[in-house]
Amino acid sequence: MACLFSFLVSTDLLPADSGEGVTFAFLEQLMDILLQYILKSFDRSTKVIDFHYPNDLLEGFNWELDEQPNTLEDILMSCRTTLKYAVKTGHPRYFNQLSTGLDMVGLAADWLTSTANTNMFTYEIAPVFVLLEYITLKKMRAMIGWPGGCGDGIFSPGGAISNMYAMLIARYKLFPEVKEKGMAAIPKLIAFTSEHSHFSIKKSAAALGIGMDGVVLIKCDGFVPFYVSATAGTTVYGAFDPLVAIADICKKYNIWMHVDAAWGGGLLMSRKHRWKLNGVERACSVTWNPHKMMGVPLQCSALLVREEGLLQSCNQMNACYLFQTDKQYDLSYDTGDKALQCGRHVDIFKLWLMWRAKGTMGFEAQIDKCLDLAEYLYNKIKDREGFEMVFDGKVLVRFVNLTYFWSFQVAPQIKTRMMAFGTTMVSYQPQGDKVNFFRMVISNPAATQEDIDFLIEEIERLGHDL
Amino acid sequence: MACLFSFLVSTDLLPADSGEGVTFAFLEQLMDILLQYILKSFDRSTKVIDFHYPNDLLEGFNWELDEQPNTLEDILMSCRTTLKYAVKTGHPRYFNQLSTGLDMVGLAADWLTSTANTNMFTYEIAPVFVLLEYITLKKMRAMIGWPGGCGDGIFSPGGAISNMYAMLIARYKLFPEVKEKGMAAIPKLIAFTSEHSHFSIKKSAAALGIGMDGVVLIKCDGFVPFYVSATAGTTVYGAFDPLVAIADICKKYNIWMHVDAAWGGGLLMSRKHRWKLNGVERACSVTWNPHKMMGVPLQCSALLVREEGLLQSCNQMNACYLFQTDKQYDLSYDTGDKALQCGRHVDIFKLWLMWRAKGTMGFEAQIDKCLDLAEYLYNKIKDREGFEMVFDGKVLVRFVNLTYFWSFQVAPQIKTRMMAFGTTMVSYQPQGDKVNFFRMVISNPAATQEDIDFLIEEIERLGHDL
Repeated sequence: MACLFSFLVSTDLLPADSGEGVTFAFLEQLMDILLQYILKSFDRSTKVIDFHYPNDLLEGFNWELDEQPNTLEDILMSCRTTLKYAVKTGHPRYFNQLSTGLDMVGLAADWLTSTANTNMFTYEIAPVFVLLEYITLKKMRAMIGWPGGCGDGIFSPGGAISNMYAMLIARYKLFPEVKEKGMAAIPKLIAFTSEHSHFSIKKSAAALGIGMDGVVLIKCDGFVPFYVSATAGTTVYGAFDPLVAIADICKKYNIWMHVDAAWGGGLLMSRKHRWKLNGVERACSVTWNPHKMMGVPLQCSALLVREEGLLQSCNQMNACYLFQTDKQYDLSYDTGDKALQCGRHVDIFKLWLMWRAKGTMGFEAQIDKCLDLAEYLYNKIKDREGFEMVFDGKVLVRFVNLTYFWSFQVAPQIKTRMMAFGTTMVSYQPQGDKVNFFRMVISNPAATQEDIDFLIEEIERLGHDL
Repeated sequence: MACLFSFLVSTDLLPADSGEGVTFAFLEQLMDILLQYILKSFDRSTKVIDFHYPNDLLEGFNWELDEQPNTLEDILMSCRTTLKYAVKTGHPRYFNQLSTGLDMVGLAADWLTSTANTNMFTYEIAPVFVLLEYITLKKMRAMIGWPGGCGDGIFSPGGAISNMYAMLIARYKLFPEVKEKGMAAIPKLIAFTSEHSHFSIKKSAAALGIGMDGVVLIKCDGFVPFYVSATAGTTVYGAFDPLVAIADICKKYNIWMHVDAAWGGGLLMSRKHRWKLNGVERACSVTWNPHKMMGVPLQCSALLVREEGLLQSCNQMNACYLFQTDKQYDLSYDTGDKALQCGRHVDIFKLWLMWRAKGTMGFEAQIDKCLDLAEYLYNKIKDREGFEMVFDGKVLVRFVNLTYFWSFQVAPQIKTRMMAFGTTMVSYQPQGDKVNFFRMVISNPAATQEDIDFLIEEIERLGHDL
């Protein structure tokens, strides 16, 4: 097969006449490369990463884009090389980010999505995907606790954009004239959030013309408080804001209550742990990223809105080439004008198909297992020599499945060695007055107690002489 | 195989112990479904769409998300059903949007991207993809005409967001204090654009707190003009603004010049047609969507910025859990803090791999062919009974590959019948004082003269009695 591809080029593939044979052979060869990568991803004897510095990778291969075409053999070789140096984010010992793991049904769904290659902006060109988004958003709203799953929502390219949507519609709700006249026409606004909230809150305020100074913790005169962003599962500590108390205050002062549950939202699937989000049903809007704790492939982030119609009236521009009012079907299924984007990637199918495959109980089991593993890790290291918990156990019960430890203030050196060996990956960082500590995330369904044991021993091995 | 999957569920797949066999069989079965769909997509005897109204689709199948898991057999059946009712956007007779066609190398690249399942925010977890983005953005800037490919850029979730980025950094460049203090601290701003520009310009102004009223064509006192969004390939007419004249004015008054070349940017690949973008090299920023005229799978949109460092300083928040300053590699490869998003989908690989496969000359040939077909269509219908060109030939030379015609003011009825037969798809719309007309887009590499002939005859057949 290799010799076949060494003299074929992409114009021999479909839609070329009689291109079926070449196309099938090419895609099957590619599938073989992908299947081998998947096998290795789950194989503990394989490295998580074969790390190289940027210049080494840049100079070690020919990545250049030329005037002339390359052969399909070269294309397949490029695929192999790309995967050789990729981080195996599905590897049982990959703990580096909030999004880890590789779900086989989610992957199948993403391949199908790529093959369908369409756009969420109208029912006309994405009928099934639009309906599945409709069904899934309603189900998610029901899980939040809004009566009958009422409200609205949209899948967006990540939690930061979902949070920006929330701030955008909150401002619009209070001062609809801002859409036409801008910030100059309305009072100075203040949004409240915790010091451990995600940076996207300040980023949103900067982008929306509110300014980063408009995001504060303290009371200021002369400003109109319009927005509270509570966090359900902070990015670093995994902590939960007290949602019920925040809801009471927001109600009293008529302030929009947003819950950034990008990370913690998955707990709504767990009868054992969903109490941590008590009060979320009183929110005006909720960000919930299935691509984090629920293990859906990237990207999959939802913004849920309690009030129907706001997303549409805030963002609509009625582009007549997309949203013709004399279409033959119910226009409420054309979601495009709710979005800041025009075209919108299909992010729904992988979540829907995984949900079908696992059932709600399957997601619950997966999440409960991760939280059990976090407790296992906590118990193993809390009294272990050389480790120190950044937070004590009392605080920890308010955390999700993040646990923190550091060893000898040498996290960066250990991380460098870890990358060189490629045996496991975990992230570190400073926070406030804490020196660098490892931020341990368990969201990978492939991880077991054995992998936790391995991680601890590997950190000790890598740091023994520091 | 069917009977095997009827008693297996998703927990039998990897990472289950000994899950390799089931996983491979499941993914191969899925691949078979996808390959059949691809074959049909290119088969002219297959419908473009098997259209059903939303309620029929909702009620005709069980799409519900339940507590219990479903079998893998059910999951494969869901995949078949989803594709049965999908719009075949790669079909040679699908002309409905600016993004059409299904490139086999692009598809392979997207499957690989899904399998690698990572995030663009740091080099640490996406080393190869970050480098490929670096190489490709530089190449695109060189094609725009910026010396040595200098500058900056980012791939974003679509042209509307790319345009929003441009307005955001233009405002920041003129008034950096806006990031901290918001719109209240700076003068009222005015952006200029043409009446045929994309609605995302007004959408951006509304979101950024400038207000839709801040986007105008005429001079106003008391405002600071800060931004001109010129269009290279308008969404409806495919028209080009006179970029050189606009560049002269922007230079004289020190106004940020943005070129929205989401649609027209692909012409930079064509020696024959790139003159239509003369002057683009004088822009401060350019939006260019390879997922439109270049046929890269959705989503693939780039914002290119001439001045290096602006994207970073405008958007950075220095989240310490991602962008640790004591990392072991060159931090300039961590692109995450340039983005409004936090996590960012890998959109680069499909473009890079297609470019490798076709070479620049392959893209050029593909685009030149589409423009030739547009001319063929124009010549066929300009004097044809029952059709009327919305624009005459003289105007048309400034267009890309859009041609317009309408028949008997009955476009909506014809479209409804077209969807019912499913034989082809083309979009219609009103614009200004023009009644509904068909907006014909040719960006599909699979389309031939025969498909153009078919379209014309099909419109006549469907509309003969109206």
